[in-house]
Amino acid sequence: MNFSSRLLETAVNELARLPGIGRKTALRLALHLLNRPAEEVELFTRSLMALRQEIRRCKVCGNISDSDTCEICASPKRDHATVCVVQDTRDVMAIENTGQFAGIYHVLGGVISPMEGISPDDLNIVPLIEKSSAGTIKEVIMALPTTVEGDTTAFYIYRQLENKGVAVSVIARGIAIGDDIEFTDEITLGRSILNRTPYPTGMQR
Amino acid sequence: MNFSSRLLETAVNELARLPGIGRKTALRLALHLLNRPAEEVELFTRSLMALRQEIRRCKVCGNISDSDTCEICASPKRDHATVCVVQDTRDVMAIENTGQFAGIYHVLGGVISPMEGISPDDLNIVPLIEKSSAGTIKEVIMALPTTVEGDTTAFYIYRQLENKGVAVSVIARGIAIGDDIEFTDEITLGRSILNRTPYPTGMQR
Repeated sequence: MNFSSRLLETAVNELARLPGIGRKTALRLALHLLNRPAEEVELFTRSLMALRQEIRRCKVCGNISDSDTCEICASPKRDHATVCVVQDTRDVMAIENTGQFAGIYHVLGGVISPMEGISPDDLNIVPLIEKSSAGTIKEVIMALPTTVEGDTTAFYIYRQLENKGVAVSVIARGIAIGDDIEFTDEITLGRSILNRTPYPTGMQR
Repeated sequence: MNFSSRLLETAVNELARLPGIGRKTALRLALHLLNRPAEEVELFTRSLMALRQEIRRCKVCGNISDSDTCEICASPKRDHATVCVVQDTRDVMAIENTGQFAGIYHVLGGVISPMEGISPDDLNIVPLIEKSSAGTIKEVIMALPTTVEGDTTAFYIYRQLENKGVAVSVIARGIAIGDDIEFTDEITLGRSILNRTPYPTGMQR
């Protein structure tokens, strides 16, 4: 690209470092910002700097939060004895959107991955084991990805929680609601038969 | 979306205002920035503010530039008697990338569009007519979009340049190099026959 301005070139280079943003898209975004009022661009950049500089991690669950304790962990309405273990904040948002979970979360910040050099020590696992040892937690629900890394992480945590008097469960894997049986992959279909639930109790949504 | 943080929500809302960025992509970008070093995010936001606040328009051609006169208009190597009229800075970049044009540009900043309320007065047209009247310009090349608005704008400028001793031309429209004749739309194919060029001169690239 031949830029007529170094300012434009720098801005495009910076925008193109974002994931999923190519140089053509970056140029379109830069020219869009150029045509917006200066105050609007200032609000935009200030919101991003504020996000980076002022955000905290909840001391209880590890989720991103505006304060030291997130709203979920601070709420007396939630069941603090039931903890759902997830990989990151997006999973918390997805489960919250269902409105089906009244417990609290524990955000690991990733999964164990020797390939990417992520060991258990790099993750928010120790506080979960400590909380469980304290005796206030009744059930830990694993909601980790169905990958080798996710399964490894779930098993690692399970081994640490054994003999601590905590029930460990895993979210149901099966055929998505609305999906055709004939088009479901073999592994999912196989699991959905093995993990069948009593009728009609299992049909409740 | 249920955000665990107002800072995150604000950042996602701001990112989602960018063209072509939905809320899910905005969330992905915000979480990406959260995981980058603070200095990197500062460089990123500073480059965007600098772009908005410090960029100028070239006084000669209207293209975006770091100084009052852009590099192209300031260059003694360019042919200042041949002016290519384009809609915006992206067209300048595209033509510069070809390396086939040694003249200078004139950036209108848009095309006449009664539907969007853009009249000739909103565009950078008057300086082009004034330059042409001054007698230093020999040829004006129209490189505007092949839309009703682009054609209207080209004709409007053509009428203003009549009897000013300036040759007016338009970039060739025809079958793109590598395209099949049988799959070319009728209008393009029709124009390519009407505007045929002498062989083998017209084959030069």
